[in-house]
Amino acid sequence: MKLPLSDIAAWLGAEIEGDTSVEITGLAKIEEANAGELTFIANPRYLKYAGVTNAGAILVDRNVPSMDKTLVRVDNPYLAFLKLTQRFYATEPTLEEGIHETAIIGDNSKIGKNTRIGAYAVIGRECRIGDHVFIYPGVVIDDHVSVGKDSVIYANVSIRERCTLGKRVIVHMGAVIGADGFGFAFEEGAYHKIPQVGSVRIDDDVEIGANTTIDRAALGETRIGKGTKLDNLIMIAHNVEVGEHTAIAAQTGISGSARIGNYVRVGGQAGFIGHIRVGDRVIVGAQAGITRDAAPGEFLTGTPARHHIRVKREQAGAAKIPQLLKRVKQLEARIAELERKSDQGGEG
Amino acid sequence: MKLPLSDIAAWLGAEIEGDTSVEITGLAKIEEANAGELTFIANPRYLKYAGVTNAGAILVDRNVPSMDKTLVRVDNPYLAFLKLTQRFYATEPTLEEGIHETAIIGDNSKIGKNTRIGAYAVIGRECRIGDHVFIYPGVVIDDHVSVGKDSVIYANVSIRERCTLGKRVIVHMGAVIGADGFGFAFEEGAYHKIPQVGSVRIDDDVEIGANTTIDRAALGETRIGKGTKLDNLIMIAHNVEVGEHTAIAAQTGISGSARIGNYVRVGGQAGFIGHIRVGDRVIVGAQAGITRDAAPGEFLTGTPARHHIRVKREQAGAAKIPQLLKRVKQLEARIAELERKSDQGGEG
Amino acid sequence: MKLPLSDIAAWLGAEIEGDTSVEITGLAKIEEANAGELTFIANPRYLKYAGVTNAGAILVDRNVPSMDKTLVRVDNPYLAFLKLTQRFYATEPTLEEGIHETAIIGDNSKIGKNTRIGAYAVIGRECRIGDHVFIYPGVVIDDHVSVGKDSVIYANVSIRERCTLGKRVIVHMGAVIGADGFGFAFEEGAYHKIPQVGSVRIDDDVEIGANTTIDRAALGETRIGKGTKLDNLIMIAHNVEVGEHTAIAAQTGISGSARIGNYVRVGGQAGFIGHIRVGDRVIVGAQAGITRDAAPGEFLTGTPARHHIRVKREQAGAAKIPQLLKRVKQLEARIAELERKSDQGGEG
Repeated sequence: MKLPLSDIAAWLGAEIEGDTSVEITGLAKIEEANAGELTFIANPRYLKYAGVTNAGAILVDRNVPSMDKTLVRVDNPYLAFLKLTQRFYATEPTLEEGIHETAIIGDNSKIGKNTRIGAYAVIGRECRIGDHVFIYPGVVIDDHVSVGKDSVIYANVSIRERCTLGKRVIVHMGAVIGADGFGFAFEEGAYHKIPQVGSVRIDDDVEIGANTTIDRAALGETRIGKGTKLDNLIMIAHNVEVGEHTAIAAQTGISGSARIGNYVRVGGQAGFIGHIRVGDRVIVGAQAGITRDAAPGEFLTGTPARHHIRVKREQAGAAKIPQLLKRVKQLEARIAELERKSDQGGEG
Repeated sequence: MKLPLSDIAAWLGAEIEGDTSVEITGLAKIEEANAGELTFIANPRYLKYAGVTNAGAILVDRNVPSMDKTLVRVDNPYLAFLKLTQRFYATEPTLEEGIHETAIIGDNSKIGKNTRIGAYAVIGRECRIGDHVFIYPGVVIDDHVSVGKDSVIYANVSIRERCTLGKRVIVHMGAVIGADGFGFAFEEGAYHKIPQVGSVRIDDDVEIGANTTIDRAALGETRIGKGTKLDNLIMIAHNVEVGEHTAIAAQTGISGSARIGNYVRVGGQAGFIGHIRVGDRVIVGAQAGITRDAAPGEFLTGTPARHHIRVKREQAGAAKIPQLLKRVKQLEARIAELERKSDQGGEG
Repeated sequence: MKLPLSDIAAWLGAEIEGDTSVEITGLAKIEEANAGELTFIANPRYLKYAGVTNAGAILVDRNVPSMDKTLVRVDNPYLAFLKLTQRFYATEPTLEEGIHETAIIGDNSKIGKNTRIGAYAVIGRECRIGDHVFIYPGVVIDDHVSVGKDSVIYANVSIRERCTLGKRVIVHMGAVIGADGFGFAFEEGAYHKIPQVGSVRIDDDVEIGANTTIDRAALGETRIGKGTKLDNLIMIAHNVEVGEHTAIAAQTGISGSARIGNYVRVGGQAGFIGHIRVGDRVIVGAQAGITRDAAPGEFLTGTPARHHIRVKREQAGAAKIPQLLKRVKQLEARIAELERKSDQGGEG
């Protein structure tokens, strides 16, 4: 695709400052862009690259100072870049139209209009699959599952019985929804399985990363709220409730019955113990271990997690211990000397 | 289902204290139960909820004091609740009877009686699958694998050649058994693969969580002992031996050739280095990093893991460092003042 | 298989010292070997086992002192053992020759010579699969994927469109290549998906562990360099570049756009924040949290990761804080006493 920069600017409602005759063939990151490519600067930190980039033009904020480059001024350079990405690279979905002849659909299941189901996908009985859903090859969906319209279930995803997925849900390859929670009663020297008879409810606009696992509730529901985004290899245990518009990075684990609020942001490899409540807009650092309730808006890091400023102070303090030991030793010597003199003085 | 409380009590060998005419329609957690539901209190901490629950009746220990609620007294409220859960919610398995016509079974494999195999499951040659085993759709089992009777292998599980699973083993969706161990020899600037020609042995009554991976041994066997329960996304490396009745929470990793004892309990996201021995009944905190052998019964937390009391004391100490720095500074000033006076005294 | 030790020695170019008439039936680790088995000592630490092993013979370095055992002297005992492992245990691959009749191959895809494709594998359109590639049952490969010759893709692996795998690549069961990166723009109270239109490039001789996930780039490529080995359950985020001959242990996570050098070694459960650069030959301890760039050859441990010696010193220091507190308290008392005397002296 090749588009005149002027067309792009008109489409975005942008002002061009510089060479309006540039033709754009693609998009690229600022450090990799070449002369035919458009790039963006959303973060002022990256302004330093503006002088050295080979990009044909740069999407920038309306307030950025002028420079010896062709600038395309918009309200939000990142969103503008995003829109263009979709325009430049949006490709036909790879999943073919229709229901593949090898897909198996159980009795009494209803499949919506324009829904595509790939080869060797298996859907159980009494399922409700909405309109315009994409189910890729190798997906296994058990009985009584519902999937809302415009959802995408990628290859080799597994979903157990009675789970409910909302609209526009995306589930990446290998994710597992609705496996039994890890619940056992230890009696007479052995673990006895506690039946996990609940289910999982995924609300609208949730995205679930590759090989992430969301266990079904013992009773009731494990729940992921509207608009929440889960990265890869995350563990959501039974009866957890994650709120709305929360973002959780890869390899984080949330133990049973924990409740995570709305607009929470969690770094990678963080862990949450069971039964705690984490308020809205809490921020959790990567690798943190959350062992207690968190009030709305707290910023927690470390294990056990504490206010991130306190953690920094303690880390700085830890670095000073060897020096502190030396100072205390010197003090002890000086005091011993003073005490000796004082005693002599007393005697003298 | 609707059952008179008196029937339930008779079935459990329980005493009712309160309204014997209640009809029970379901089970629920104490904070969520409504008037037709039965709940339980196993932990005295939850007794505070007894006054506010809407539950129709509460399963309690025989020693709990009387209260203004209908109580159902049993020896073990939790186990009683468990039994009832099975009675109320036990549903027909979703996997249909028989061997699906699309399932592929290799030459010379023997499938037991009443075993169910789902659509597009693939079983290799020379396998031994016991009676009443459930193998869900999309499972791939390679040659020479044996699976004991009454086991359940959920959708999209993969098992490589020559692995052995005992009786009543449950393997959740997406788990991987018998992939090559991570073994390489570094020679002349590159890693050379060490053939991983061993296998995996899973003993009776083991449960393996979703997307957990258990690698095959280089030589010999990686082994999971009888009754041990593994949560989701756990990594068991080659030649590891996990004992009996051990419970390991999600996302824990155990490095090559480590030996973990019986009745060990491991929190989530813990890590064990290779070749160590962890004794029976050891308790390992979440996110701990076990870097040395552990004697039977030790309770270890932190990274590197130490006795949990010591870790707490060090964490408390770390919090005092900023204040300690201040105190040492003050001491230095006071000593300098004393030294000045002492010198003047000497001179005077 | 039974081989005279003299034949083995001849095949390896080794010298036998001791009983040349031994017949070898298998290989084993030194602590487990019996009289018919050959073992090896590569690490001098294991020489202590030489006196107690039951092994029929021991592969050792040419410089090891003589002992009362049959020794087979070679230049590199480990590599020799490796070669023998392949000779003793190399079995026929379990995947049958040819393309299984149920495998589905999309339009315009080219499959090389002697390539084997298992049951219910699905390969998209316009793919290029090289010669002598093994694709196991249940694998799903989307459109425009290329896989170099002699590669092995194990059961239930999923690969999205436009990813490229080099020659001799091994991908273990359940691994996911090319899922969308975790990229969202937060605008007006909700996350908006940033299209992930890049791809993944895996170079020659890479091995990817079971259930590991490698996300596709937002734009451009996520890249794993030649000869690099990834263990199980690893997360490689979008636009990450991992260099050549790097080895990463299980459950490690590398955040978006991080660049990891060549010959880097990373322990299990380590985490790397996004956008950092880690130089060649860096060593990262297990569970470390890498939060800054690392110069070539650095050895980092802890969270946030620092030079491993510094971490050890700080850990040793932390253990001394309780005692330090006591010493400072004593100093304060002694100074108070001196001050009291000094004041009295002044008054006197």
